[in-house]
Amino acid sequence: MSELLAKAAKAKGSAQGLGVKTTEQKNAALHIIADQLISEIHFIMGENEKDIENAKQKGFQASLIDRLVLNTQRIQDMADALKQQAELNDPIGDVLESWDRPNDLAIEKVSVPLGVVGMIYEARPNVTVDAASLCLKTGNAVLLRGSSSAAHSNKALVDVIHRALEQSDLPADAVQLLEDTSRETASKMFKLNDYLDVLIPRGGNNLIQTVVEQSSVPVLETGSGNCHVFIDESADKQMAIDIAVNAKTQRPSVCNAAETVIVHVAWAKKHLPELIQALQHHDVEVRGDDKAQALAENLIPATEEDWATEFLDKTLAVKIVPYAQAAIEHINQYGTSHSEAIITESDDNMLAFFNNVDAAALYHNASTRFTDGFEFGFGAEIGISTQKLHARGPMGLPALTSTKYIIRGKGQIKA
Amino acid sequence: MSELLAKAAKAKGSAQGLGVKTTEQKNAALHIIADQLISEIHFIMGENEKDIENAKQKGFQASLIDRLVLNTQRIQDMADALKQQAELNDPIGDVLESWDRPNDLAIEKVSVPLGVVGMIYEARPNVTVDAASLCLKTGNAVLLRGSSSAAHSNKALVDVIHRALEQSDLPADAVQLLEDTSRETASKMFKLNDYLDVLIPRGGNNLIQTVVEQSSVPVLETGSGNCHVFIDESADKQMAIDIAVNAKTQRPSVCNAAETVIVHVAWAKKHLPELIQALQHHDVEVRGDDKAQALAENLIPATEEDWATEFLDKTLAVKIVPYAQAAIEHINQYGTSHSEAIITESDDNMLAFFNNVDAAALYHNASTRFTDGFEFGFGAEIGISTQKLHARGPMGLPALTSTKYIIRGKGQIKA
Repeated sequence: MSELLAKAAKAKGSAQGLGVKTTEQKNAALHIIADQLISEIHFIMGENEKDIENAKQKGFQASLIDRLVLNTQRIQDMADALKQQAELNDPIGDVLESWDRPNDLAIEKVSVPLGVVGMIYEARPNVTVDAASLCLKTGNAVLLRGSSSAAHSNKALVDVIHRALEQSDLPADAVQLLEDTSRETASKMFKLNDYLDVLIPRGGNNLIQTVVEQSSVPVLETGSGNCHVFIDESADKQMAIDIAVNAKTQRPSVCNAAETVIVHVAWAKKHLPELIQALQHHDVEVRGDDKAQALAENLIPATEEDWATEFLDKTLAVKIVPYAQAAIEHINQYGTSHSEAIITESDDNMLAFFNNVDAAALYHNASTRFTDGFEFGFGAEIGISTQKLHARGPMGLPALTSTKYIIRGKGQIKA
Repeated sequence: MSELLAKAAKAKGSAQGLGVKTTEQKNAALHIIADQLISEIHFIMGENEKDIENAKQKGFQASLIDRLVLNTQRIQDMADALKQQAELNDPIGDVLESWDRPNDLAIEKVSVPLGVVGMIYEARPNVTVDAASLCLKTGNAVLLRGSSSAAHSNKALVDVIHRALEQSDLPADAVQLLEDTSRETASKMFKLNDYLDVLIPRGGNNLIQTVVEQSSVPVLETGSGNCHVFIDESADKQMAIDIAVNAKTQRPSVCNAAETVIVHVAWAKKHLPELIQALQHHDVEVRGDDKAQALAENLIPATEEDWATEFLDKTLAVKIVPYAQAAIEHINQYGTSHSEAIITESDDNMLAFFNNVDAAALYHNASTRFTDGFEFGFGAEIGISTQKLHARGPMGLPALTSTKYIIRGKGQIKA
């Protein structure tokens, strides 16, 4: 039997037993893992050093090597995150709805674990611990497939998790790591419908699109964000500038950063130069349409392609529109249904924006940068879903649950 | 442009406008469609006659031809169903959750339509109207791909729906039917992620498995049911016999019918012959394991394959177990996680069954035949989901919804 099938079977074999563990048993296990990470910190760092050495020999960029590093602080952060997850509400076993039928059947809809979660992710080894702990907290077994560049680190972390789980009430088999990180094996993972209830890809757009296109296992897609800030006619000047600058520059490389600012022509005639100046003061390269170029100086001409581009750096496109509806249409045409903001003092335009823009998160007078499980108060984040099935937007622990119906009768048969 | 892309684009183009129609506008449209079906009943039956003639010439079985027939009664039933759907609660626009964050952001989670639903289905033309109306009620556009054997009937029904929608406030483009029913076109539909938010296959297991395996569009899987009734030691004799007979014989061809009855050995020693007699009285062919054969006469030996078979006819496998946990293990090994029943007077065994059997619907002292959107009180049924993502078990209107987050701020930016 291949490593893939053997480990998938182990994960599945452990799922039923794991799924009925109590909140106390699961939380205790998270604490044991946290403590084990600290007590084995030198082992982890030693194994991590092998990945760092390999990466250096292969000539990886400094930023990529930095993502691989596990130092004392980062391991302590992982341990802290585990203890915080232990504090979170356990969504398993909640009675979500209950009702009685005219024939006296009593129906309950109860939250249960998904079963076995497959995770395919890149580089950062902290995802290994994060994914494992979120799955354990929600009673799910997990089959992890990390990056080959983090192979030693990931194996060390899962070895530590196994040693911790053996001291706990949870089955150690519930966390499985594939040592074979070949693409062929990942492709086989896409077809493991008999073992996996969901696949969650975390990483770049190429990885996610490959999984979406090839997986027959249901996928939770966490995709790209071409996000907009629309500054309406009535927008407060300073609020609009602050939000546009924040949405673009506070962390340009993430999916909830803004890529295009759309400006109502009346506001632009008064304030566009000041907005551009503020953006340029933060080293933003601003690309404007014809009207923006006519209203402000030092703009690079925007191309059609710019409207559809997730720059992920300090580049921003600016478009001028004659009325709010044109902004809504632009967003629905070019956006990726992630996070969209309107800055306005008009309730009508706010409501039109909320009703007619199709996106996971819609903001009135706030930055798009708040689309995030922690900012939403979920205490944890599985990722930000860009699909409409199962979960949309920031996903907390409930995204890792399914339901079952419990029906209590007194001998009812169907007529 | 191909018919597929043109119609997918029309559906998508209409989705945003449809999604914000009021409940009153949507319900009015359902009534207009119902009336139009009746006023064009002769047109529909005339077109249906062409499909019937084709089917007869191709030598279809009588049962398949019967599924195709649209007579006065069946068209009236469709119209009645439309009017009943108009009465159902509209799940769109519900505020599902709302909370404030410490930074004063006010967050609401609101239910919204999925967008565009793709339906791939076999034979029965009533599914055309049912799918279209359920989608319209929930503000979703729909791209329909029916069977070639029902091509004239489906086109007539969608023509009627279009003429009705033109009298309504809803966009007529929201309902699209593919006239090209080739497999190649269906395969292309599996890859229309830019146009379709979900694909729902309705039909036989082959169709569903093909869609699950090949679609990159997220799928709502409505699959097969290898359902069990477990008769525990303490089960009431007559209740157990009545439920086993009902679960097997009330409608053997459907997914929530029982395929195996598992019997506790102590109950079997007292009552197995009477159970077998009752089943055989309903023309059930009973296949028993060695122990069942020793306790009752006239049993055909059950094979290993029988435990995994969804007979879908009046065939039933019977297995004897020494204790309840063995029944739970058998069900988790061979079941398809659809509907499972325990007949017992023991609360402990009921709870063990509820906690440890992994299935969409778990029954205590009731027939598995109740797993159904109408029996659950949903007033409509999209299908019975056998996957764990998004929806599990009978799906009512909320299964055709997604969510968006609405966040109201006062100028908040991320620190």
